[in-house]
Amino acid sequence: MLDKAKKYSVGIWALKGCADRFVPGGYEGRYLSTEEAIRQVAKIEGIRAVEFASTDFDSPSDRISSVLKENNLQVAGVLVNTFCSKWKLGSLSNQDEGLRNQAIEEVRRTVRICDELGCNNITLWLGSDGFDYPFQVDYQKQLILLRETIGELAEEFPNKRFALEYKLKEPRKYLFVSSAMKALWITRKLGKDNVGVLVDFGHALMSKENPAEVICILNEEKKLFGIHLNDAYREWDDDLVVGSVNLWETLEFIYYLDKIEYKGWLSFDIFPFRMNGSRAVELCVKTMDNLIKLAEKIDKEKLAKAQSSLRADNSLAVVQEILKV
Amino acid sequence: MLDKAKKYSVGIWALKGCADRFVPGGYEGRYLSTEEAIRQVAKIEGIRAVEFASTDFDSPSDRISSVLKENNLQVAGVLVNTFCSKWKLGSLSNQDEGLRNQAIEEVRRTVRICDELGCNNITLWLGSDGFDYPFQVDYQKQLILLRETIGELAEEFPNKRFALEYKLKEPRKYLFVSSAMKALWITRKLGKDNVGVLVDFGHALMSKENPAEVICILNEEKKLFGIHLNDAYREWDDDLVVGSVNLWETLEFIYYLDKIEYKGWLSFDIFPFRMNGSRAVELCVKTMDNLIKLAEKIDKEKLAKAQSSLRADNSLAVVQEILKV
Amino acid sequence: MLDKAKKYSVGIWALKGCADRFVPGGYEGRYLSTEEAIRQVAKIEGIRAVEFASTDFDSPSDRISSVLKENNLQVAGVLVNTFCSKWKLGSLSNQDEGLRNQAIEEVRRTVRICDELGCNNITLWLGSDGFDYPFQVDYQKQLILLRETIGELAEEFPNKRFALEYKLKEPRKYLFVSSAMKALWITRKLGKDNVGVLVDFGHALMSKENPAEVICILNEEKKLFGIHLNDAYREWDDDLVVGSVNLWETLEFIYYLDKIEYKGWLSFDIFPFRMNGSRAVELCVKTMDNLIKLAEKIDKEKLAKAQSSLRADNSLAVVQEILKV
Amino acid sequence: MLDKAKKYSVGIWALKGCADRFVPGGYEGRYLSTEEAIRQVAKIEGIRAVEFASTDFDSPSDRISSVLKENNLQVAGVLVNTFCSKWKLGSLSNQDEGLRNQAIEEVRRTVRICDELGCNNITLWLGSDGFDYPFQVDYQKQLILLRETIGELAEEFPNKRFALEYKLKEPRKYLFVSSAMKALWITRKLGKDNVGVLVDFGHALMSKENPAEVICILNEEKKLFGIHLNDAYREWDDDLVVGSVNLWETLEFIYYLDKIEYKGWLSFDIFPFRMNGSRAVELCVKTMDNLIKLAEKIDKEKLAKAQSSLRADNSLAVVQEILKV
Repeated sequence: MLDKAKKYSVGIWALKGCADRFVPGGYEGRYLSTEEAIRQVAKIEGIRAVEFASTDFDSPSDRISSVLKENNLQVAGVLVNTFCSKWKLGSLSNQDEGLRNQAIEEVRRTVRICDELGCNNITLWLGSDGFDYPFQVDYQKQLILLRETIGELAEEFPNKRFALEYKLKEPRKYLFVSSAMKALWITRKLGKDNVGVLVDFGHALMSKENPAEVICILNEEKKLFGIHLNDAYREWDDDLVVGSVNLWETLEFIYYLDKIEYKGWLSFDIFPFRMNGSRAVELCVKTMDNLIKLAEKIDKEKLAKAQSSLRADNSLAVVQEILKV
Repeated sequence: MLDKAKKYSVGIWALKGCADRFVPGGYEGRYLSTEEAIRQVAKIEGIRAVEFASTDFDSPSDRISSVLKENNLQVAGVLVNTFCSKWKLGSLSNQDEGLRNQAIEEVRRTVRICDELGCNNITLWLGSDGFDYPFQVDYQKQLILLRETIGELAEEFPNKRFALEYKLKEPRKYLFVSSAMKALWITRKLGKDNVGVLVDFGHALMSKENPAEVICILNEEKKLFGIHLNDAYREWDDDLVVGSVNLWETLEFIYYLDKIEYKGWLSFDIFPFRMNGSRAVELCVKTMDNLIKLAEKIDKEKLAKAQSSLRADNSLAVVQEILKV
Repeated sequence: MLDKAKKYSVGIWALKGCADRFVPGGYEGRYLSTEEAIRQVAKIEGIRAVEFASTDFDSPSDRISSVLKENNLQVAGVLVNTFCSKWKLGSLSNQDEGLRNQAIEEVRRTVRICDELGCNNITLWLGSDGFDYPFQVDYQKQLILLRETIGELAEEFPNKRFALEYKLKEPRKYLFVSSAMKALWITRKLGKDNVGVLVDFGHALMSKENPAEVICILNEEKKLFGIHLNDAYREWDDDLVVGSVNLWETLEFIYYLDKIEYKGWLSFDIFPFRMNGSRAVELCVKTMDNLIKLAEKIDKEKLAKAQSSLRADNSLAVVQEILKV
Repeated sequence: MLDKAKKYSVGIWALKGCADRFVPGGYEGRYLSTEEAIRQVAKIEGIRAVEFASTDFDSPSDRISSVLKENNLQVAGVLVNTFCSKWKLGSLSNQDEGLRNQAIEEVRRTVRICDELGCNNITLWLGSDGFDYPFQVDYQKQLILLRETIGELAEEFPNKRFALEYKLKEPRKYLFVSSAMKALWITRKLGKDNVGVLVDFGHALMSKENPAEVICILNEEKKLFGIHLNDAYREWDDDLVVGSVNLWETLEFIYYLDKIEYKGWLSFDIFPFRMNGSRAVELCVKTMDNLIKLAEKIDKEKLAKAQSSLRADNSLAVVQEILKV
């Protein structure tokens, strides 16, 4: 059962402080250092691991490593920051060879950090590889270049698992790796076992996907490399507290994570702009604990039978049962 | 150049009369028979072919065939109607073997019609294969069944080209074949040369895709089996007159159709609910003629150079030039 | 408390059978007559009233009236059908005086039916008054005409309550009465006490409103004339079973209906295209009963305090409590 | 004609450098000072005025004033920055009296700056007054407080014109002043002549409005206090270069600005994250110049006639004419 295997992780950015275009200085007025943020995470009951961005290593990574050990925290993964201002027009797919090589170098640097941290999960969220306007780029060239670069990195580091975290948009108005199926297409084209897909719940909603359906597909393809939990209003990557908007689809996501025997981290990726970070993550843990219990209340046999009938009235009758007062 | 090869086709439903859930009797009060509709099409200058649904054959198909010849019209393709009320919960992916076989039989019937009409293009728009609620269906089972059935049909009819016309939703709230990349995934899993993808401009927008990008991808994969032209406000399959809302993306679509040397039909798929059908199709033809001319005004070399820079200011400067008064 | 005052009503169309543009003949293959549909409603425990469209009166209305009495059902309201094919380009705002007068006449006919049925609630859902394309209509002229016509009707029938049911779109791509605030603007411009607003939960979501917020505003203005319950995925008027998608916002809607001491009908407006109508309405009743109980579990004092702090962590902690397993 | 009266203004933020949550340091690596940004504006042909945020006055405002004069630039308006981190949970509607008073004080400070600059246009874009989660706030209390505070300010400064710039969301997930009609409702409730509405083209699209329709309504109500020009993909406030996505609706907006004899500034409000600011504004000016010319090509009499028929085929035929190659 998912609850027994439950391993919560959190993206450290939720603790460091969040900015946006109108408040670039951050809503807390200051940003926590990575060390400070780790110490905050350590206080949150239930969290056993942390996800980082490669640029979070403002302290030497061996220092970070010892702070993590001290606090009994593992590293769930490291996301390569390829979306700094210099890569604003593209990182791994940039036509400028110099800039592209710098982005590749950032991946290599991240791999070395991961080696030190004893982590094999590298997340490629290519937030600056895309376009903003019709006619801006030559899609044919860009997509080939993107695949080539990812393929070369996968080849260079066969022991690392590269998870493509797809997202429809933001910061670019259109990202190349925009949906589960596009990310899957890239991984299948490359044909490397160490390139897979990370499903962020809110990104799936924004791409108009049913999050449970996409993890089933990726699981069948042995490409589900990780998940991010959060919530959203379906049009934007709102990065809200888990279960706060789309309760049913969150429960369904949990139900299928259990069904496919997902073994990875349950990682919270939230941006609590106007909320205390620790408090927001605590809310995620508590809500998630409760939603897992609610999902367990679903009568699996009855649901399977209802689903075989394809009739929504049957399946609704089964799942509405769990909220019965 | 696209304009020289230009071959316009139209989905016959635009001429027969359109209904919706509030006006099920149709906005014209009556529906044209297929024969009457063909005669209307024949009067529209520029249209050289017709697309049908399998249920349009209310006259024996040899009769239809002779009316088409009489009017010098070709058949661009036939879409299998698998979305009748009996298949409301699924056609090719229905768990009920009897219903699924009836749907398969409808495909076979369509193949026979196509044989008589001398047409090899069969469109599978699986508008009833999907779900409406979270938890309604078992995604794993449904997707496997869907692929199997399509695969068997492709095997059975190796000389027919089956185009999966993807669509995010409607009539089901979620369709299984929901995006270009999901349709592509199915075709690649099946590994059959005679299963490809049809890109409907408005469906692409609804799936939050850039239509030009997806035809580039499908072309690279040799899977672009057809296109549908229309326009929409991005949230729904509005099936509006071509070029009436998203001018730039329509121009970009035309530009890339030309670039990838697309040889298929330029087929209008519109639902002119509150407009005379013939008049609406005429507007499509005239607008499309003009947009092709506008697209030709784009300086290809300059645009290629601008696109290499990845800078939108450069590409915008090139394309805005064509509207210069 | 809302649960004690609870008075469920249902729009009869949910029972008669649903069609859409792809299945104009309806998903059940046949449509129930109004009498048959009323008899179906009568069997559903908890439903005490029915909403009609003016075109539902296929039997003489005194016959309908006696069937209702026989079955102990009240009439919650009658919606004027001004969206027939003849009014496809506009009803109360049609520039064609003849057509406009016919639409006015349909309102008058509806008033007479209501008189016979002993009902004062008339719903104006102006589904054909709007536009489909940029530049199609002169907004200035259309909006003035629309207001004038509504004002005249309100004047003519001072004892009837006219509820403007706003909706963003469908069947027109844009409707004039598109949001709660636009409907409110019209009612305030007219300055008639007998013109108000009907809030459909799914319409509010489609107009990107928070449904609870709008009923607060309309209540403050004494303009909340009715509500429709259903659910939707936020982009379209999906007319799904209550509480099946947006649980939190449905609970919040119930919470504020109670808070503002809403006295009207709790009317289900659903389109169960691919579900048995009676079964779908039963699911709505059961779910609604349960959601009302869940909403009652919210600690009102604690929530008020949390809301005063404006901090979402505080309010989330209060409301998540009600789902605690 | 609009082109003769044409008075372009630009929001200074387009020139200073743009940040977002992933690149809080800004895409240019540095931010221009207000003075530097003004000097950049001065070099852009066609721009005659600047819009500021109250926090742009990093130099004493008399210094700014003289730089403006030196460069022959006027002040189109000043937007009060009430969305700093301290007001993250609300400014003019904050339940905390201290914070609310500080926000009021920021408005007063802005008024004083405007006095020095000889400007009467104050923009209230209340980007932090709203909510992020269901149940977070008490809508009744918040909306009353919001109106009261705005009303008091309008009373205190009768010679200033306060324009409510509505926006659906961002940075809050929901803003209180979310649509043209909600802004209008507030202004009409207040009944002050010096409180009106500012229509941002992209905000209107995000609120699912037709931008031309809303300026007609606001003009009728004498409440159109200003406009912001830009473009967007309809789901988010993309703040793109004018005319780069929605050409037809931009042309329609221009057409109706002319028709209602709008006399205010044509102000560009763009966020050229990944584009040089000066270059982006130049593109706006050039495009806008051309679009005004294109709009002038529309045959007004023919269009009026087509619009009277309410038939889109007629109006499309008239407007498509202007793009004829």
